[in-house]
Amino acid sequence: MGASIRRLSTSEPDFLRKLDALLAFEAATDDNIERSVAEILKNVRAQGDSAVLDYTRRFDQLAVADMAALELPAAVCAAALQALPAGQREALEQAAERIRRFHERQKADSWEYEETSPQLAGTRLGQKVTPLDRVGLYVPGGKASYPSSVLMNALPAKVAGVRELIMVTPTPRGEQNPLVLAAAHLAGVDRVFTIGGAQAVAALAYGTQSIPQVDKIVGPGNAYVAAAKRRVFGVVGIDMVAGPSEVLIIADSSANPDWVAMDLFAQAEHDELAQSILLCPDVAFIERVAASIGRQLPEMPRRSVIEASLAGRGALILTRSLDEACDIANHIAPEHLELAVAEPRGLVGKIRHAGAIFLGHYSSESIGDYCAGPNHVLPTSRSARFSSPLGVYDFQKRSSLIEISAAAARSLGAIAATLAHGEALTAHARSAELRTEEEGNG
Amino acid sequence: MGASIRRLSTSEPDFLRKLDALLAFEAATDDNIERSVAEILKNVRAQGDSAVLDYTRRFDQLAVADMAALELPAAVCAAALQALPAGQREALEQAAERIRRFHERQKADSWEYEETSPQLAGTRLGQKVTPLDRVGLYVPGGKASYPSSVLMNALPAKVAGVRELIMVTPTPRGEQNPLVLAAAHLAGVDRVFTIGGAQAVAALAYGTQSIPQVDKIVGPGNAYVAAAKRRVFGVVGIDMVAGPSEVLIIADSSANPDWVAMDLFAQAEHDELAQSILLCPDVAFIERVAASIGRQLPEMPRRSVIEASLAGRGALILTRSLDEACDIANHIAPEHLELAVAEPRGLVGKIRHAGAIFLGHYSSESIGDYCAGPNHVLPTSRSARFSSPLGVYDFQKRSSLIEISAAAARSLGAIAATLAHGEALTAHARSAELRTEEEGNG
Repeated sequence: MGASIRRLSTSEPDFLRKLDALLAFEAATDDNIERSVAEILKNVRAQGDSAVLDYTRRFDQLAVADMAALELPAAVCAAALQALPAGQREALEQAAERIRRFHERQKADSWEYEETSPQLAGTRLGQKVTPLDRVGLYVPGGKASYPSSVLMNALPAKVAGVRELIMVTPTPRGEQNPLVLAAAHLAGVDRVFTIGGAQAVAALAYGTQSIPQVDKIVGPGNAYVAAAKRRVFGVVGIDMVAGPSEVLIIADSSANPDWVAMDLFAQAEHDELAQSILLCPDVAFIERVAASIGRQLPEMPRRSVIEASLAGRGALILTRSLDEACDIANHIAPEHLELAVAEPRGLVGKIRHAGAIFLGHYSSESIGDYCAGPNHVLPTSRSARFSSPLGVYDFQKRSSLIEISAAAARSLGAIAATLAHGEALTAHARSAELRTEEEGNG
Repeated sequence: MGASIRRLSTSEPDFLRKLDALLAFEAATDDNIERSVAEILKNVRAQGDSAVLDYTRRFDQLAVADMAALELPAAVCAAALQALPAGQREALEQAAERIRRFHERQKADSWEYEETSPQLAGTRLGQKVTPLDRVGLYVPGGKASYPSSVLMNALPAKVAGVRELIMVTPTPRGEQNPLVLAAAHLAGVDRVFTIGGAQAVAALAYGTQSIPQVDKIVGPGNAYVAAAKRRVFGVVGIDMVAGPSEVLIIADSSANPDWVAMDLFAQAEHDELAQSILLCPDVAFIERVAASIGRQLPEMPRRSVIEASLAGRGALILTRSLDEACDIANHIAPEHLELAVAEPRGLVGKIRHAGAIFLGHYSSESIGDYCAGPNHVLPTSRSARFSSPLGVYDFQKRSSLIEISAAAARSLGAIAATLAHGEALTAHARSAELRTEEEGNG
């Protein structure tokens, strides 16, 4: 056995307090990391390539002659894809195609309209949508490096129309990850630099002699990368800094306890801080899941990680009803929500906050992680209350269009002047009034 | 005279270096502010109402008995609107109506589709769009407090369907701004607390006994408010932290130099760090603008602020052509871009980065600031390269919908399992495989 996971019930008087304690997660800020990152950013900003080279030689133990040696030729990535076993290559290609197709539907278009009232004729308002020019994609080296994440980060940018997508990924002691390079080629990454850490984030944010400045940096990374991204935010855009991954499963007795247990494992195997929670109104079903956990756990290669995650952050929670389970789900605002119930369509309308919602018994999170089509980069740590999956909209931006006719400049100008005088901004008021007073222009 | 503004020409060999020096702006981080804000956040989080009360008594010199005394009854805001002079009330109402109508067009809808290939029949994917539950709106006290900003921040949230919009605004020594309260009533703000500073941001981010926790905080504020917002980001969403306001005007000889000069003033009067830049290929027109600046400046009540802004951060720039002016505009990515040219439609397609684009001579920024309809909260400091005007989309979020049929669980599950094994995530693979192997469920 040894599979220990806490049991809770919503009937306990202090349930909400216990739940909040379980959910609490705060990324510790480490003063040493902060200081070291601040210095790396400063040096790369001031010295460019030479600082990037220094740090890469030191931190990644790479004996490189110059920056040119840190750019991977496109042919290397193309060859990595060709060299994959056929099954793996086809799976990657099919996943990429499905992700691309889903994200195509997220593309926003520009729009414009003309005012209809006669005194505003000729006045047009609108919203122009454009892609970002250039985006940086951070891909971790080593074990946290997932080809699926390369597809999920890169494809929305390319679908949005980003002109140049620059990937950075560290290759400590020269170790490359061929699956990651293959995914980069498939996703249309334009350039790849084998640099990482805060120095890579700095190079992308400020630009160096060899590395062009980007407009936004996305992708996961360790504490140094996260600290660097927070610090360059404003100079460039960044994506959300992700917390530990989570799944919340709402199940009724129609669910398969082995499938539910394995879905809890799939989340837990990511790392010891990952969070797997089951909500279920049927105490007998909860017992069947607990038994299945004990039965299936010994087969798992990442058993010790799963055990630590379930024991530290997991829970099987008895609810009074499925409705109550939905209320709790809204409180948790989970990254992944599985509705493993007979009638998922009856519940989905009650869910207000979740990164991704999986409907019915066959919709495993793992299909969503790889190839259903929607993005697997999702809001964590309750941030689904206010944010969204990574998408094409993260690589497009809007500009307002305002075209005022001479006639409208009189009626709207009068409103603007009144309000500007109310705010004691005389030049604002005069700017509107000048166009009201004069008949012609010039 | 005394109206000094630098002249530049794109033909100068070091033009780009000079331009970048002019654009450079970095919000200084002040260690004293950081320390003080960190302590305020910690105390409000731990002690709730009592800390908020303490700080408000101390910083705002308010002798209040309890938290109830810090909530403004809705009737106070309604009365503020009724008490306005008719002209001001009507101008505010017309502005609100136009802003609401423009933003209605930004509302995103949920969508869903079913896979068409036979082996995936019954598989549905989609995106569910929902409003944020609860939003906090910070409104500064004193001179930086603008009713137009209340409309611009509050209306997109209400259009999005935010259930509860909570405004906080400090009232030092009890001084209220009736225009701000009137705008809050017009915009549908649900509750108003007369608190400000980092303590107000903390109360909204963590919640107290009297003030409910929100999901996002928007609105401008001083350095303490900005530092507090940065620190609570992640616990709640925040909007962009704004830098100084900017206008870039591209003009040809068909423009009216007095109008152009006044538009430069309108930006400059905000504060000494505001930035007003003209790009023009006609040296004679630039001289006419310079002459108009000298002629009109003495009439301006905020003359000294305008002078300091134009001298410190303004420029009249001679370009080789209008095309080159557009290239420079894309480099600057201005908050406001006026195309004061005879054929603005010929240029707008060349503009990739700008918060708002004003087309033609009658489209003054000041009409856009108050009542054209589009938002006046716009990306500053070159961030239009990667971000957008404040909009309804900032108060909506998306959840992916993934419903996999039993048949699709086999074909998609095989892809997922292949990729999961490639990433050494066995539980992910097994989660897909279990659903592939079994015919039925349960």
